[in-house]
Amino acid sequence: MDPTAPRRRWGWGVAGETPDADAVAERKAYLEDALGFPELSVADPVPLAEATVPEPGLAVPDRLAAFCSADRAARARHTYGMAPPESIRGFHGDFAPAPDLVATPRTEDEVAETLAWATEAGVAVSPVTGGTGVAGGTGPPQGDLRERYAGTLALNLRELDQVLEVDETSRAARIQGGALGPELNAQLREHDLHLRHYPQSYQLSGLGGWIATRSGGHYATRYTHIDEFVQSVRMIAPAGAFETQRLPEHGAGPDARRLVCGSEGALGVITEAWMQVEPRPAYRSAAAVYFDGVEPAADAIRAIVQAKLTPANCRLHDRVETSMYGLQDLDRELVVLGFESADRPTDPELERALELAAEHGGECPDGPDHFGPGYGRDRPADSDVTRWGQAFQMGEAAGAEVALGVVSGTVETAVTWDKFPEFNEAMVSALEDAAAEVCGMGHVSTRFTHVYPDGPAPYYTFMAPGAEDPEERIEQWSTIKQAGLDTVMEFDLTPTHHHAVGRDHRDWYAQQIPENYDEVLRAVKAVLDPAGVMAPGVLVDPPE
Amino acid sequence: MDPTAPRRRWGWGVAGETPDADAVAERKAYLEDALGFPELSVADPVPLAEATVPEPGLAVPDRLAAFCSADRAARARHTYGMAPPESIRGFHGDFAPAPDLVATPRTEDEVAETLAWATEAGVAVSPVTGGTGVAGGTGPPQGDLRERYAGTLALNLRELDQVLEVDETSRAARIQGGALGPELNAQLREHDLHLRHYPQSYQLSGLGGWIATRSGGHYATRYTHIDEFVQSVRMIAPAGAFETQRLPEHGAGPDARRLVCGSEGALGVITEAWMQVEPRPAYRSAAAVYFDGVEPAADAIRAIVQAKLTPANCRLHDRVETSMYGLQDLDRELVVLGFESADRPTDPELERALELAAEHGGECPDGPDHFGPGYGRDRPADSDVTRWGQAFQMGEAAGAEVALGVVSGTVETAVTWDKFPEFNEAMVSALEDAAAEVCGMGHVSTRFTHVYPDGPAPYYTFMAPGAEDPEERIEQWSTIKQAGLDTVMEFDLTPTHHHAVGRDHRDWYAQQIPENYDEVLRAVKAVLDPAGVMAPGVLVDPPE
Repeated sequence: MDPTAPRRRWGWGVAGETPDADAVAERKAYLEDALGFPELSVADPVPLAEATVPEPGLAVPDRLAAFCSADRAARARHTYGMAPPESIRGFHGDFAPAPDLVATPRTEDEVAETLAWATEAGVAVSPVTGGTGVAGGTGPPQGDLRERYAGTLALNLRELDQVLEVDETSRAARIQGGALGPELNAQLREHDLHLRHYPQSYQLSGLGGWIATRSGGHYATRYTHIDEFVQSVRMIAPAGAFETQRLPEHGAGPDARRLVCGSEGALGVITEAWMQVEPRPAYRSAAAVYFDGVEPAADAIRAIVQAKLTPANCRLHDRVETSMYGLQDLDRELVVLGFESADRPTDPELERALELAAEHGGECPDGPDHFGPGYGRDRPADSDVTRWGQAFQMGEAAGAEVALGVVSGTVETAVTWDKFPEFNEAMVSALEDAAAEVCGMGHVSTRFTHVYPDGPAPYYTFMAPGAEDPEERIEQWSTIKQAGLDTVMEFDLTPTHHHAVGRDHRDWYAQQIPENYDEVLRAVKAVLDPAGVMAPGVLVDPPE
Repeated sequence: MDPTAPRRRWGWGVAGETPDADAVAERKAYLEDALGFPELSVADPVPLAEATVPEPGLAVPDRLAAFCSADRAARARHTYGMAPPESIRGFHGDFAPAPDLVATPRTEDEVAETLAWATEAGVAVSPVTGGTGVAGGTGPPQGDLRERYAGTLALNLRELDQVLEVDETSRAARIQGGALGPELNAQLREHDLHLRHYPQSYQLSGLGGWIATRSGGHYATRYTHIDEFVQSVRMIAPAGAFETQRLPEHGAGPDARRLVCGSEGALGVITEAWMQVEPRPAYRSAAAVYFDGVEPAADAIRAIVQAKLTPANCRLHDRVETSMYGLQDLDRELVVLGFESADRPTDPELERALELAAEHGGECPDGPDHFGPGYGRDRPADSDVTRWGQAFQMGEAAGAEVALGVVSGTVETAVTWDKFPEFNEAMVSALEDAAAEVCGMGHVSTRFTHVYPDGPAPYYTFMAPGAEDPEERIEQWSTIKQAGLDTVMEFDLTPTHHHAVGRDHRDWYAQQIPENYDEVLRAVKAVLDPAGVMAPGVLVDPPE
């Protein structure tokens, strides 16, 4: 997938408006045959010419004219992120909340100029890098909140896509916020370095968005969030540039970096960051381990991380999930373990992990694979480990599900090990019950995306046959998702481990945070964004 | 040392007013004979009866009467932390800034009651756990700032010293903020767990202070600051309780825990936290490696941490420092490496680290020591590794230096590897030149306390013969320290890696932080501490 190609308007992908026909047919057969969905009809996306895209309410201001437009296609493409309701509405041609303007600043000064103009004009600014967010935090404000602004502008960072400086000694690189994953790593490769952070959206998302949303990446343990790689960060706020020092670590007051990480565009635009980078791994060990049940698999993973083994890959997929992704006859839980190193063989770590897994009933019939030094693509293409690597690329399937009218979504959280078994049971039931109630049936799978010594980050996917009418289908999605989030809150957990708060998780975020923390965030926003123009409604409300 | 024994009034220790005579004699001989100091005279501390302790300006309020006093000895003992000027003034009987009152709340409600009273009465509150801080952040405000308050109160958390709850499954414990290191670990030992965080002040400092100051602990890599162990934290602010959720990790907005970590008492009182705990290590490997020069030693350490080896111990001591601590004839740089695990032998990691060290000229004449499982005190008492472990306990020597009129202090920071060699040279020169100018001579040593893949945390100790007059000696200390901090700022670094900001580092902290961050912190303080009574002058100014 070429990250620089024009994006699909209504969801994941770059390949035009219509989802890949083979992917749709494959998905349709699978949902009907394997999951027992009723026969699904295939809809076509509404072409742009027939879509609802309101006329822009603002003219392009002179001072932004060199990098700002009111082009209809661009405005449609900047209306949404990739939350399910957004994809459904976009597919069916509803771009009612389209921004009035799309700015694509080419320099940091042009970012500052845009924010200065927006602050004076009272125009809401929605910063976007890759636009792949799934929490409703990407597009312009809607409804009553929209009415408070003179207009809306999407600020696309994609022109700021350069690696500006590399410090090979300290293994750090200064990277612009608009650089997408493949772009920044292509530039770092010239220095035999890379940024080892691969969120599932890696190909179409970029650094600024990752930091703004505290994205969860490649590493299942230890370096799970992008936060761990941020050496320093520079954000352009309406009040001015906010730049932290370039330091390995410090203990001077509350860490200002941590205020920028997770700020979701509500405080400013992340234009660049010094990131910790590293050589590509030269050694790797991996294994697929099977368990009879989520609990023994979770116990094995707990033993592994509490032994302070730090697998790069440590994913649990329950039997529903393995079924959803093509191993219908497995009927067991799967744990994929992978260790990697740029320095030395990782065999001892994997072997110790397999011993601990075996103590909890884990079986590894094919034995471990060890690679290196300089391993390439020498893993058999049909190995389970390879297959699970590929299954992780879910983009086209998501588009196919929109075309097929499927209600699908995710709920993710983090939970301490002591609560996990009870929580897991409650969550699967809540999602299944809600799906049965509103869709007649539904499948719910459990995965661990990341794990910590004190608990896992479980990730639930639900899939159900949806109503033909888009708004009705969104209502179904919303009911199921809310049942999941309410269960999260019954156990006093977080509505997001790495998908961010956006607008969709606000009600549950309000229950999560400490008393007075909303007021703290509003006070911080009042300093950095006094007119309240940045990403209105995302994370925190603008000042009254 | 019994952590519960009454504290020395003017500095480190519990053993009465006068520093241990043997320690003083040993230090005197060493400074004169080995470092070439002129003959030093030994002063005696001014007894409490002869000390200047102003009469309290406040009567004990009725509502706090059950746990508050205006006792002269208690007020003297709560006047200072352990920054060099504080120890010198306390030794010589100057307790002019003594608080009017000392509160020792026995419950969280009594903490809240104290803050409520102070807010109404306009009394400055200085929270203290162990009182071992060295950045001037411990005692009541002085000078003009003092005049803005109706009085001053020290809030001692030591009654809140319990481990309240242990979750063995998730390996976490809920611990009160006033528990000192040895106290909390004694309680955790009943569960075969412990909190593996040993700042140099471990025996006399406690959890609330560690979190408030982002203390640096045992682990030289990876888990360097207490922040890494905080699962959730509860702080009583004047505006109410501020408690984060108990979660392994999350990505929901800017992390509220990170606002409390490093808040230095300026936002509230940390009454308890859920901390990640772990079993004691069962395996350990250690080695002493020698280098000819700081640069090759630093290069070796860089290779080790960039290989993602994570030694628990990874300390560099330059030849001045080894000389300062008893190995005068070594005349080389020393690197102490140690790996530990509760799960498995650590020999492979140490051996790989020694290979990397050897590539940079490191010699390990005695070879590595490997211990475990269940290793005890089976290391030879005269091994270098053991000796360096003991040398780390510097408490009595610090007291002896005060009695001997020595000017001693430290400057610490963190720096990326690319800048380190130039910075190190500049820093050693700056401190040496300043010491020569104001004291006629001085010794400066370089240490790494903690290291990261992108840079070390170097730590400089200066030692010079001081003036007999205490205030003149403080002036000497101040001149040398400022020369060090100015050098830190010439390289755009942090004035503190783990000693906190307090009041002593404020001027340099102001240069370090992002534009607008001081205003951000003031806005946060205005929400949580609207009357500005918490730790006035520490970290951030109270509202005008």
